[in-house]
Amino acid sequence: MPNETAADRILSGLEAAPIFDPHSHINPHSPTSETLADILGYHYYTELARSAGLAKEQIEPAAGPLDPKELVANLVPTLERLDNTVQLSWFIELAQTFFGWDGDRLTRDNWEALYDEAAKQMAEPGYTDRIIRQTNLEKVFLTNDFDDPLEDFDTNFYVPCLRTDDLVFKLHTPEVRERLAKATGIEVGDSDSLRAAIRKLFEHFTSKGAGACAISLPPDFEPGEPDEDLTINEYLKAFRGDEEAIAGLRMELPEVVSDAAEKAGLTAEDLDRMFVEGGEYDVSRFVFWTLAEHCREFGLPFDLMIGVNRNVYPAGVHQGRDLYDSRCSLSQYAELFNAFPEVTFPVSVLAPTMNQELVSYAWIFPNVVANGHWWYSNIPAHIAPNLRARLQAVPGDKVVGYYSDAYKLEFVLPKFAMYRKILAKELAAEFCESRGWSEERAVEFGLKVLRGNSERLFGG
Amino acid sequence: MPNETAADRILSGLEAAPIFDPHSHINPHSPTSETLADILGYHYYTELARSAGLAKEQIEPAAGPLDPKELVANLVPTLERLDNTVQLSWFIELAQTFFGWDGDRLTRDNWEALYDEAAKQMAEPGYTDRIIRQTNLEKVFLTNDFDDPLEDFDTNFYVPCLRTDDLVFKLHTPEVRERLAKATGIEVGDSDSLRAAIRKLFEHFTSKGAGACAISLPPDFEPGEPDEDLTINEYLKAFRGDEEAIAGLRMELPEVVSDAAEKAGLTAEDLDRMFVEGGEYDVSRFVFWTLAEHCREFGLPFDLMIGVNRNVYPAGVHQGRDLYDSRCSLSQYAELFNAFPEVTFPVSVLAPTMNQELVSYAWIFPNVVANGHWWYSNIPAHIAPNLRARLQAVPGDKVVGYYSDAYKLEFVLPKFAMYRKILAKELAAEFCESRGWSEERAVEFGLKVLRGNSERLFGG
Amino acid sequence: MPNETAADRILSGLEAAPIFDPHSHINPHSPTSETLADILGYHYYTELARSAGLAKEQIEPAAGPLDPKELVANLVPTLERLDNTVQLSWFIELAQTFFGWDGDRLTRDNWEALYDEAAKQMAEPGYTDRIIRQTNLEKVFLTNDFDDPLEDFDTNFYVPCLRTDDLVFKLHTPEVRERLAKATGIEVGDSDSLRAAIRKLFEHFTSKGAGACAISLPPDFEPGEPDEDLTINEYLKAFRGDEEAIAGLRMELPEVVSDAAEKAGLTAEDLDRMFVEGGEYDVSRFVFWTLAEHCREFGLPFDLMIGVNRNVYPAGVHQGRDLYDSRCSLSQYAELFNAFPEVTFPVSVLAPTMNQELVSYAWIFPNVVANGHWWYSNIPAHIAPNLRARLQAVPGDKVVGYYSDAYKLEFVLPKFAMYRKILAKELAAEFCESRGWSEERAVEFGLKVLRGNSERLFGG
Repeated sequence: MPNETAADRILSGLEAAPIFDPHSHINPHSPTSETLADILGYHYYTELARSAGLAKEQIEPAAGPLDPKELVANLVPTLERLDNTVQLSWFIELAQTFFGWDGDRLTRDNWEALYDEAAKQMAEPGYTDRIIRQTNLEKVFLTNDFDDPLEDFDTNFYVPCLRTDDLVFKLHTPEVRERLAKATGIEVGDSDSLRAAIRKLFEHFTSKGAGACAISLPPDFEPGEPDEDLTINEYLKAFRGDEEAIAGLRMELPEVVSDAAEKAGLTAEDLDRMFVEGGEYDVSRFVFWTLAEHCREFGLPFDLMIGVNRNVYPAGVHQGRDLYDSRCSLSQYAELFNAFPEVTFPVSVLAPTMNQELVSYAWIFPNVVANGHWWYSNIPAHIAPNLRARLQAVPGDKVVGYYSDAYKLEFVLPKFAMYRKILAKELAAEFCESRGWSEERAVEFGLKVLRGNSERLFGG
Repeated sequence: MPNETAADRILSGLEAAPIFDPHSHINPHSPTSETLADILGYHYYTELARSAGLAKEQIEPAAGPLDPKELVANLVPTLERLDNTVQLSWFIELAQTFFGWDGDRLTRDNWEALYDEAAKQMAEPGYTDRIIRQTNLEKVFLTNDFDDPLEDFDTNFYVPCLRTDDLVFKLHTPEVRERLAKATGIEVGDSDSLRAAIRKLFEHFTSKGAGACAISLPPDFEPGEPDEDLTINEYLKAFRGDEEAIAGLRMELPEVVSDAAEKAGLTAEDLDRMFVEGGEYDVSRFVFWTLAEHCREFGLPFDLMIGVNRNVYPAGVHQGRDLYDSRCSLSQYAELFNAFPEVTFPVSVLAPTMNQELVSYAWIFPNVVANGHWWYSNIPAHIAPNLRARLQAVPGDKVVGYYSDAYKLEFVLPKFAMYRKILAKELAAEFCESRGWSEERAVEFGLKVLRGNSERLFGG
Repeated sequence: MPNETAADRILSGLEAAPIFDPHSHINPHSPTSETLADILGYHYYTELARSAGLAKEQIEPAAGPLDPKELVANLVPTLERLDNTVQLSWFIELAQTFFGWDGDRLTRDNWEALYDEAAKQMAEPGYTDRIIRQTNLEKVFLTNDFDDPLEDFDTNFYVPCLRTDDLVFKLHTPEVRERLAKATGIEVGDSDSLRAAIRKLFEHFTSKGAGACAISLPPDFEPGEPDEDLTINEYLKAFRGDEEAIAGLRMELPEVVSDAAEKAGLTAEDLDRMFVEGGEYDVSRFVFWTLAEHCREFGLPFDLMIGVNRNVYPAGVHQGRDLYDSRCSLSQYAELFNAFPEVTFPVSVLAPTMNQELVSYAWIFPNVVANGHWWYSNIPAHIAPNLRARLQAVPGDKVVGYYSDAYKLEFVLPKFAMYRKILAKELAAEFCESRGWSEERAVEFGLKVLRGNSERLFGG
């Protein structure tokens, strides 16, 4: 190429290496799509279409799921109007790469031909293998429910990861306690049985080569050494409706508060419920801390995805309802980082306020690793400055560049392609141009960020 | 041009379209300036001069306003020392464009000739028309007090907008209640009469073609479904000094608190005052919510300008006393956005923390629109990254690019010119260079952001 | 140079002027290094090595300090792995400049030769003078303990600065009260003696030509007009163990609180301790305010370095344990800025949230000056956008561009070199390219930011 720049050459160097994707939501039993509806039904598209004014009924009718082609037909006229988004550019790139599409805008005139052609190709034998090959994908990590049997797939390629949101935040629901009992054979009634159940999960996951324990956390969560077992035991009993436990917990309320409550017209029943609900947070902290203890024992990194508020927009589409609050700080995690020096914490953040904090915390705490560009942060406008700071100030071994977060394998390539372009530009500008590095050295460092660190930290 | 870049050509495309300015503080009865004092007396200059050390007495003497020429003579020596600011570059550009000035620095040596020449041109018949023509200004939206009669100007060019800060935050003052009574013929004594008065205002403003209802909000405001009418009624009575209402409100204080207050040495009078002051916030929330209900009914967008703290620097010049606090989040508005799906909320923010939030909230909530670059955010260093994220991740229909916020028409051109340059650069870099868009497509999208969306959302 | 850019030429202009460094931690009795251990023992390296996994024992053994060469030998293998950091690039640059080193990566193969060569050069007579000459350093400001005798060094070149963290935050410790008594001859027992002691310190420091009073502050500090002297007097007595004062303070606790405390099982002793600890904050505010009063009287700027949390990572190396919390705002300082219009407050911030606030506060408050790029903010990725906003929106006289914060003179050059490059680029892009300034004018403005403002504000 006559006008090839240093960034172009560095990009070629980065593209030559297979992709190692340390976090996704791929279903290993159905890793690729059957129709474009599996692709355009991704929440990144449905939520943007909803945000651009498409009625929820056109996407997720109350009467039940739409026919795939009908869903796409409904989406396209709205997607036309949001083709400025980088999310839609992922689609354009994957359609060109995987289906030989020659379009550059998805419109009501051309979508159907693409839909049919894609469906045809998706139905061909070896389609998944072709996507993996074209993506040059070496390995992809999953996000598994704690009660996933992890059976019937190649755990060497599709590496399991123990996702623990339900355990930490929903143990007060009978459903989660039942799933836990079923998965482990242990009825959780007190802290000992809870620990035993969690240990079973770690044994199961590590026996299948799990790469990490992971969780997403709301902005106001602040982990800490939990209350003594005795209190937790009472809460666990109270969750199960044990009246004595509820009454006992209520007793602990300082009299001045219960008097005030009484004056405010709260009944004993209100108070009981308040206690059980207040208990959720205590129990969440207890379960969270116990998970960290098991990460230490089993040698698993504990992926923290910090800052999401769930269901902020309840009228949104599936997975398009969550947002965040910038009033959040990694200070909330200092006690955790200090208490578990042996555990590696790859940290992902949402709020822009926390990105500089993440750089600084990874610069100081040996066990804090800056991990990828999560969700609302995963657009070039945010990736570029965040990445720049990480490359300049975090020890090179502690920057896990990127993960796809994909639900279908078709997205791994365009998402990584977006990231690699930004990485190549940053390397060329900061390291080659400003500091005089050779392009080879820049590529070597880029590959460490892009995959070397993931491989080392999450196992490979 | 031999070295013309893609950004230059896109800029030409953007410049070709008339300006549609959806938010200003223009006085339609005196839209342009009579002397340079009207221009350099803009708070952007007086506050910077004050900040650079000019005594307030030199700008706003206690004895009363200065002669216009004297004000400018006082300002210039200080303005010389802050000619690095983008605010001063607006002045340079407008002086060159509108007055044929050939200077590029305003100094104590050249200001007087410019002052005299400008005054001469400003006095010429058709001066305002010339400014509008040179600006290529199609329409400009105003900011009207709720009791503005909206008479004797062309509401098709100078579009009214109902500004509601006083109603929401100052209804406890007799002055505002009197102005409201005078404007609507309704004495506000309870929630019903308050609603009736607000309805009158909406009827009046929409009959004059108003484009929006608007308000600026402090960082700690958190709107929500208000208390039942009964409580509001008591507060409204208490504001008017009704002793029974005050006593009644005081009764609601839990005994434990009033005991503590007594021990702390507070008298019953202190408590009464606390109640009435506490009531302001309840009433603010009530009025705010009622405005949103009327926006829904009358089909008006509700412009939210979030985050300003008033009078942080009381010794500052007029309009140069307000600042903000970054500890603020759009989370505070989630309940509002959910409760009024039919109302469009164009949102402007001050704090940098809220800019990424705004991108994410506009990406999820159908009724949240990212609106312009407000006040302290309105400099290229902040506009560029904020705009970049909006262009990449918000549906293209939901980005209202820019408004001038101008007090005099002369400022519309240089402010929009600054924004258009940044927009053109971002379009060239992200859309043409990175994504391979044609320049025509980039211009088409740019014009949607620059004016198409304003036109559609605020009426035209 | 054939391909010399405007930025290159502006950089040359900036480099031609001597460096004026308004804040450092240089020890004037030992301003330069004796071995590379003095350089690589800088916390920027030891903390990064620690963060990259080096055991603390390898850096700061419990048994006592390592032999210098052994320390460097221990560090180098880890430093190899973090040569992406800008911190390490400072080292490369200083080694090349001062020791004639021709390497560009520090490795286990080449470090020893460099170590020996550097030690040889450092031992040569006139080494410090050579470093000063090569750095083209005109003056450097120190950070002195309040009880520093300030003797036996050239206070015209090494300008003293009164650092007051201990006074404000540790006056409750007997150690600090003893140091204060020894330095001033005044035993602090009440507010009057405290004021007298502080006045002695200001007299001493200003007699030695001190340039500023300075302090670093935690994110939750909120200065304000302090309690009346009477209360402070009681606290000061309580600090010294006066039982009557302790009992008296305890009496002020509202009964409802002490009842609750009793129910919670707190003893009278617990309460006493709580009081004395609570008192620390009151006393901190009192001392801080008193310092501001003395800055006013003695005409010293009061450097505020806002936002550091101490000892967040207690297992870190010396000076590598502090971090910050982004939930912090300059709003917390509005009362201070308003109360002391005669005092200049050069403000440095850590959290990214506060950088835009700093621009806006310096744009409004005459006595707020944007000061340098502090600690975790001192990397190009953060400097560039922060500087850009300051150059565009803060009056040019109120931007103190940079200080080195260095512990050894060898660091002044590479740190200033990093900053000057960024400054030159910003000047070329924003002022020459966008606004059409001449390069001479850009250099003139750059020099004001780089040194002119420091000289004027801190004395010279």
